[in-house]
Amino acid sequence: KCSGRMQTVTLIPGDGIGPEISAAVVKIFDAAKAPVQWEERNVTAIKGPGGKWMIPADAKESMDRSKIGLKGPLKTPIAAGHPSMNLLLRKTFDLYANVRPCVSIEGYRTPYTDVDLVTIRENTEGEYSGIEHVIVDGVVQSIKLITEDASRRIAEYAFEYARNNQRSSVTAVHKANIMRMSDGLFLRKCREVAENFKDVKFTEMYLDTVCLNMVQEPTQFDVLVMPNLYGDILSDLCAGLIGGLGVTPSGNIGANGVAIFESVHGTAPDIAGLDLANPTALLLSAVMMLRHMGLHQHAAKIQTACFGTIKEKKVLTKDLGGNSKCSEFTAEICRRVQDLD
Amino acid sequence: KCSGRMQTVTLIPGDGIGPEISAAVVKIFDAAKAPVQWEERNVTAIKGPGGKWMIPADAKESMDRSKIGLKGPLKTPIAAGHPSMNLLLRKTFDLYANVRPCVSIEGYRTPYTDVDLVTIRENTEGEYSGIEHVIVDGVVQSIKLITEDASRRIAEYAFEYARNNQRSSVTAVHKANIMRMSDGLFLRKCREVAENFKDVKFTEMYLDTVCLNMVQEPTQFDVLVMPNLYGDILSDLCAGLIGGLGVTPSGNIGANGVAIFESVHGTAPDIAGLDLANPTALLLSAVMMLRHMGLHQHAAKIQTACFGTIKEKKVLTKDLGGNSKCSEFTAEICRRVQDLD
Ligand SMILES: CC(C)[C@H](C(=O)O)[C@@H](O)C(=O)O
Ligand SMILES: CC(C)[C@H](C(=O)O)[C@@H](O)C(=O)O
Repeated sequence: KCSGRMQTVTLIPGDGIGPEISAAVVKIFDAAKAPVQWEERNVTAIKGPGGKWMIPADAKESMDRSKIGLKGPLKTPIAAGHPSMNLLLRKTFDLYANVRPCVSIEGYRTPYTDVDLVTIRENTEGEYSGIEHVIVDGVVQSIKLITEDASRRIAEYAFEYARNNQRSSVTAVHKANIMRMSDGLFLRKCREVAENFKDVKFTEMYLDTVCLNMVQEPTQFDVLVMPNLYGDILSDLCAGLIGGLGVTPSGNIGANGVAIFESVHGTAPDIAGLDLANPTALLLSAVMMLRHMGLHQHAAKIQTACFGTIKEKKVLTKDLGGNSKCSEFTAEICRRVQDLD
Repeated sequence: KCSGRMQTVTLIPGDGIGPEISAAVVKIFDAAKAPVQWEERNVTAIKGPGGKWMIPADAKESMDRSKIGLKGPLKTPIAAGHPSMNLLLRKTFDLYANVRPCVSIEGYRTPYTDVDLVTIRENTEGEYSGIEHVIVDGVVQSIKLITEDASRRIAEYAFEYARNNQRSSVTAVHKANIMRMSDGLFLRKCREVAENFKDVKFTEMYLDTVCLNMVQEPTQFDVLVMPNLYGDILSDLCAGLIGGLGVTPSGNIGANGVAIFESVHGTAPDIAGLDLANPTALLLSAVMMLRHMGLHQHAAKIQTACFGTIKEKKVLTKDLGGNSKCSEFTAEICRRVQDLD
């Protein structure tokens, strides 16, 4: 036992299939002897003083302490005025960068092979400012807000990420031919930051051109950095290239060292509790988390076991093309993890 | 001869490979005995009274009279202050709908088969308002403008298009979960118009979800209608699915019966004048134009000849995977058109 080196992670199991896939990840971490201690919390928003929606104090406190969260899917709120949990978490912890590595999984067939790229999305401003007005009856404006600080911060994150992850290029995705001032500012900051990272190649590309090239030849891309809405679109598009949200990990990087890793698929209420869910997206998010924590060997072991299981095609959940239960898929990954010791 | 039924079309050959591919289309129209009389015009912007950029008077006058234009690629202006020709034409003729049928071409390999959808893009407002401000140093806003009138107009166009082209469904693409007021207004108008088209199925989908589903299973989509920027992105993405801009036709529908059909690829200056260009995108745009003019038999004949040539793979330009010259590819299509008589 080496409890002295255990790190605490706040676990937010989430709704629907969330608890099952979280339990799967915990099992696999145990098998891999990952030095992680889970602190389970619920983040469903509550009304705080002044009627403001906020996440429960014990969840906030846990995250503030642990700095690292792993989160399952949360159900979309239906109560009027209830905020999107995603947006509330981004705001609460200033999660300014959404990072999605999209890597083709051997053995899982999609129209593409050898995709290996990372989308880095600015997560705090842009089209998500929430500022909108009715100008006159029948005329509405929404404001896209771009700031120098947020643009520089995300550009720096992207280049640091590229450097630290042995990636050779960063592409800034924009529509500065149309939004000359706002996307222009974003692009200018990317160019400036690029000057400080001479070891990383920098290119610029229009969003429409990226989309066109992405579906024709995704292997040409490496790290992509972009404003909020473009990231919302491209990150989902790229997830589609490698097999969808069920196999795509995601990480949200915040200020002050906070980071939350999450599966971005839905809660799948129709199969919740039936031991049919696929834990891959949450597991690969947990692998990203281990890397973020510097636990590279544990990360590699779990990733190898997961990809090996998928490649062998013997024990797969239904959505992956198999007949196995979540628990069987999990047990197979655990077995492989232990074999790697 | 039946010159009494000849219809005039304004031909804008454009720059780079534009003249070659325009000449190819004219040849194929001759072979098909299409009752079209060409009026060639140049639209390169000039500075009008008051320093305003405008298209030359004789081009404007021709378009006002003929109402129908066919346009090759135009080079991106490099002079400062010189407007994008695409934007200027959209503005001059109030070309409010950009229509792009994306249909898989048999024999031309892409990762997808059986794509058969149409993107309909609002072409006049949204993120393209051109209104931007510096709020304070380092803080910029761009205004996305959505109006009831433009939203209703494009929704009506989309449903009319679906009905007239035997399409069964229209999907409104939006981010009304984020831009509640602006995309909300757009969506509300789509819903209202849908009420008047009970024969056409109506669905709504988030833009990110559309992108994800599009690259996974594009055959699920039929007609898609959306605000300006989303259309810019999705129309290029969908072009990518069927082989790129070299094979994708495009039409711009304006108020007062005006319509301009165009190839949306670039001017390819590197191969201009070398008889190497691929006229397919302009030709298929011309086929859309014939249908728009009610000349369905001529349209069908030319389309069959073009697709037949591509499917047979004997006479193809280089970008299509062959070794033939533009003139040889054109001659082959002419031969097939005449065989169909
Ligand atoms: C649920 C929604 C607010 C969100 C977004 O648009 O950002 C989602 O699409 C995402 O990418 O996390
Ligand atoms: C050239 C540019 C102004 C244009 C746009 O963004 O609309 C282009 O991408 C298009 O789709 O016609």
